[in-house]
Amino acid sequence: MADEQLQAQVAYEDLQDLQREFDEVETEIMRQQAKLTATLYERRAATVAQIPRFWPLVLEQAPPDIDQYIQPSDSALLLLSLTSISVSRFELDVAPQSLAISFTFAPNEYFTNDVLQKKFWYRKAMDGWSGLVSEPVRIDWKKGKDLTGGLLDLVIKAWEQDRGKVSGSLSAEQKSLSKKIENTGMGGASFFAWFGFVGRRISAEESVEANKIEAKAVADHKAGIQTEGSGHDHGDQEDEDLALEMSLEIFPDGDDLAVAFAEDLWPGALGYFSSAQEQDAMSDFDMESDDEAPDLAEKLDDSESDTVAPPLKKHRSQ
Amino acid sequence: MADEQLQAQVAYEDLQDLQREFDEVETEIMRQQAKLTATLYERRAATVAQIPRFWPLVLEQAPPDIDQYIQPSDSALLLLSLTSISVSRFELDVAPQSLAISFTFAPNEYFTNDVLQKKFWYRKAMDGWSGLVSEPVRIDWKKGKDLTGGLLDLVIKAWEQDRGKVSGSLSAEQKSLSKKIENTGMGGASFFAWFGFVGRRISAEESVEANKIEAKAVADHKAGIQTEGSGHDHGDQEDEDLALEMSLEIFPDGDDLAVAFAEDLWPGALGYFSSAQEQDAMSDFDMESDDEAPDLAEKLDDSESDTVAPPLKKHRSQ
Repeated sequence: MADEQLQAQVAYEDLQDLQREFDEVETEIMRQQAKLTATLYERRAATVAQIPRFWPLVLEQAPPDIDQYIQPSDSALLLLSLTSISVSRFELDVAPQSLAISFTFAPNEYFTNDVLQKKFWYRKAMDGWSGLVSEPVRIDWKKGKDLTGGLLDLVIKAWEQDRGKVSGSLSAEQKSLSKKIENTGMGGASFFAWFGFVGRRISAEESVEANKIEAKAVADHKAGIQTEGSGHDHGDQEDEDLALEMSLEIFPDGDDLAVAFAEDLWPGALGYFSSAQEQDAMSDFDMESDDEAPDLAEKLDDSESDTVAPPLKKHRSQ
Repeated sequence: MADEQLQAQVAYEDLQDLQREFDEVETEIMRQQAKLTATLYERRAATVAQIPRFWPLVLEQAPPDIDQYIQPSDSALLLLSLTSISVSRFELDVAPQSLAISFTFAPNEYFTNDVLQKKFWYRKAMDGWSGLVSEPVRIDWKKGKDLTGGLLDLVIKAWEQDRGKVSGSLSAEQKSLSKKIENTGMGGASFFAWFGFVGRRISAEESVEANKIEAKAVADHKAGIQTEGSGHDHGDQEDEDLALEMSLEIFPDGDDLAVAFAEDLWPGALGYFSSAQEQDAMSDFDMESDDEAPDLAEKLDDSESDTVAPPLKKHRSQ
């Protein structure tokens, strides 16, 4: 039995190495994909700019992991005033996972901003966690039109005081934010609360340091040097800090929503647009109408439906 | 207004070109990914072979788009006897979408096969459709143990007579298959009925021809030559044939399930295994137990949870 245990032990260590190498390949693939598609996305942007309501129609067909966050009042604004969406991977060389998502708006009755851009940085924490973190983005609401009911402003206020540092005890602003979140409950929050998402407080410096430590551990491991596990467990203090951070979060799934935009809606926009047209055609079915424009849905449809679901059309669980 | 219409017309044509170019890049990325990960998958197979019940544990954590097709009686067989799963892309150069999915079994009370392999070919039809098609795979059930209740055998019988050709009127075997499917209703069918999936009847020859026609249309279009739409609409006869084909299908979503295996379970196996271990650890929480093996879940966990969900761990809608 001891032999079998040893064998299993070795196997488990190999799995960790493998997982790391798979991750590296995946990162490289992400980088190549971004490079290979860059000019296609530029051409797409130029083309769809000529099609009225392209992005609102795409958004109407958004999959549940996006759609669930869009409330009726958000819809009204988005459908009437959204003019474009774009996604860029602004740290392609160091972290192709990092994202900037931009929304452009026509003049509207809700806010004065032309563009709302939300950036997500891919960071690694000293405790081994890695993922997307962000900073709150201010929206200049018109009077009485704040769809977040003042919450986003509170987030900005708490953030500006200390750049989101959370430790020991909360500041007055943080306390009032935390209280408001607790009292509101965030189910049914406006999509625009997403612009207040922060996620874990991990500085660029911490991330660089954590990556260095991991790289050293990997090198040591390859050289056969035993090291005590690089990712340390959380102490009580750290658990408490994490809980405090969470109590200030107005959009807990903000990172998931960012990924859904970047890996589903953005690459699949042509497919979603074609679904929108299809739906439109269906509802016109009984009417004797001369189509004003050729129906893309019809043309894209055959290759669209029931295909291997190339991620550029309709995303599946890839 | 006429100008605007013309502009929209041009934009729609550009979208079709763009979609095609996106598809081409996606195919190339798929090819590169397969090449870059090939040796990693080989190493993974060798490593997980040393871990008892690796694949059954992975399958227990399968996402809904796989799990929904596994009935309790399938589970019993799979959990006890499944020894490995592997996925290969056997037409990497011409069609990286084509898949072969193999399941290896220990001796069991249900069937005598050691290996069940299901192949899916990526084909293009003359009507413009493209997707995965397959051929039924026989399972040598032990007496009284057929989990499909005889349906899979009927599919094989009907298939063998004419290699799945469906036209005009059904053969006697096809009729009896169609009737049985109609009477059974396939909700709650065994996972093993999937081995009978056929999908659309598109021969390799038709696919080559359809690709040639499309390539010519694309070249003509680029050269500015007007052609009447390459994908023709279905005639009544073709619609009827399609309906007949569908009436013989015992697993209508067979292609989706193949893609879920290939793009989710297979690349994400290490992540699912780690979830299984995590769950196991949770249920042991209250017991004073000496772990027999180091807990991979604990080690993978930090980077696992709440990360950008690299497709190699838990798949999201990429």
